Amino acid sequence: MARIKRMERVVALTKELIDSPYELFPFAFFCEKFTVAKSTLSEDVQAVRNGLAAYDLGVIETVAGASGGVRFIPYHTADADYKFLTKLANKMSDPERILPGCMIYMNDLIFTPYIAMRLGEIIMQRSLDLKPNYIMTVETKGIPLALFVARAFNVPMVMARREARITEGPAVSINYVSGSTKQIQSMSLPKKALPAGARVLIIDDFMKAGGTAKGMQKITTEVGAIVVGTGVLIATKEPIKKMVDEYFSLLTLKDVDEEMCKIDISPVLI
Amino acid sequence: MARIKRMERVVALTKELIDSPYELFPFAFFCEKFTVAKSTLSEDVQAVRNGLAAYDLGVIETVAGASGGVRFIPYHTADADYKFLTKLANKMSDPERILPGCMIYMNDLIFTPYIAMRLGEIIMQRSLDLKPNYIMTVETKGIPLALFVARAFNVPMVMARREARITEGPAVSINYVSGSTKQIQSMSLPKKALPAGARVLIIDDFMKAGGTAKGMQKITTEVGAIVVGTGVLIATKEPIKKMVDEYFSLLTLKDVDEEMCKIDISPVLI
Repeated sequence: MARIKRMERVVALTKELIDSPYELFPFAFFCEKFTVAKSTLSEDVQAVRNGLAAYDLGVIETVAGASGGVRFIPYHTADADYKFLTKLANKMSDPERILPGCMIYMNDLIFTPYIAMRLGEIIMQRSLDLKPNYIMTVETKGIPLALFVARAFNVPMVMARREARITEGPAVSINYVSGSTKQIQSMSLPKKALPAGARVLIIDDFMKAGGTAKGMQKITTEVGAIVVGTGVLIATKEPIKKMVDEYFSLLTLKDVDEEMCKIDISPVLI
Repeated sequence: MARIKRMERVVALTKELIDSPYELFPFAFFCEKFTVAKSTLSEDVQAVRNGLAAYDLGVIETVAGASGGVRFIPYHTADADYKFLTKLANKMSDPERILPGCMIYMNDLIFTPYIAMRLGEIIMQRSLDLKPNYIMTVETKGIPLALFVARAFNVPMVMARREARITEGPAVSINYVSGSTKQIQSMSLPKKALPAGARVLIIDDFMKAGGTAKGMQKITTEVGAIVVGTGVLIATKEPIKKMVDEYFSLLTLKDVDEEMCKIDISPVLI
């Protein structure tokens, strides 16, 4: 019976940790929840760590000291990530996806939860050092990705709008030049959305010239927050010089040839 | 050593099941992955079931037969859901959230991943019988909720736009009358988004008169899909008669009193 009980506890511990990625749970939280001593909890944590590690399902990190605890980080091996991105790139290369104007239809992929979730975890892993406490995007298609990056980091997501809304209160608005069309566009962010000094990771689904990313950077600094990084799912190879200096992308779109029905897209090697 | 190994396996099994809620994994999938006999796997599944049940963390369902398997369903007890919704309603009642025109600022809540995730699970649980295979919303604020409902059901999300976009190909557009403002609005859905006969659960963050929900229902049937249900996070009490006949909501907004700085919002009893 005691053995069954330990197993049940380890299952519950696994679930709790996985459900809140990146959240540092004080040891006392679980000791109380499971009414076990810290030494027993340490053994349980070790079991979760070993189980996840054995099948490349993520990492358990323990932080020592008074403000310490245990947390789950949804890591995967670089090899597994590369395979996932290659498979995604292959799906995106389907000529049926080509739309007039060399656009690619990909809503079905980026709105599929398990794909968006894994992409969010990959971006989290690649931008760990940036230590963001907010993830920001602009409506609309970047939202699923941004939301799952936010989930992987266990921080809130904020969203800029194309225009201010009455349901969002006082807002800061900026104008920016779209890099591709050279048109002046505007973007608006509720004042309540970001506290001053927030560390913001900007996320979007697609970057061509980088005008929108630049707009997001501008509006972030405009409200007194700090841009710690900018990441996109897909960046086009051309123009090589983007309007933002620093960014990373998971995939590079080299070419969409409407006539030849060919899409050339592949994972970025890191 | 054998005991440690079983523990590791059960941890990995827990993680795999939880990561893909509602997905029916054939027993053979895990037998192969963990190189165990079906009888051993059954014991492991039982351990996961007991562990989750002991702490109200969800349900493990096994389906017998050739097309059978095992899946995780992110159930919670009605009591736990009610507590969660009450806490959320209390947060939403903060007078600081009142905006001009009796609007409530709530982006910070609905864009916080763990809140949106739990709400998605509650909606899944309450609409299990509807058996949707697509979740649909209209941009923008309903997206996080719709995405997490889609995740809980393990189905794709589709999104209608306020206007057709060049990156989404041929689209069906409709006009509808906003129930609150009586203005004619339009909504557009890519033709590729929904196959004919798809069973669609419509999700949105907020319903007042129900005009937008009606528009979503109309565009869904317009592309040959079937509306199996309509669910929103918050429905206002007034008008009692909405423009859609059937819908459900998690919270009822009875009143926003700008002058008295009072918001009256509470969970719907089921």
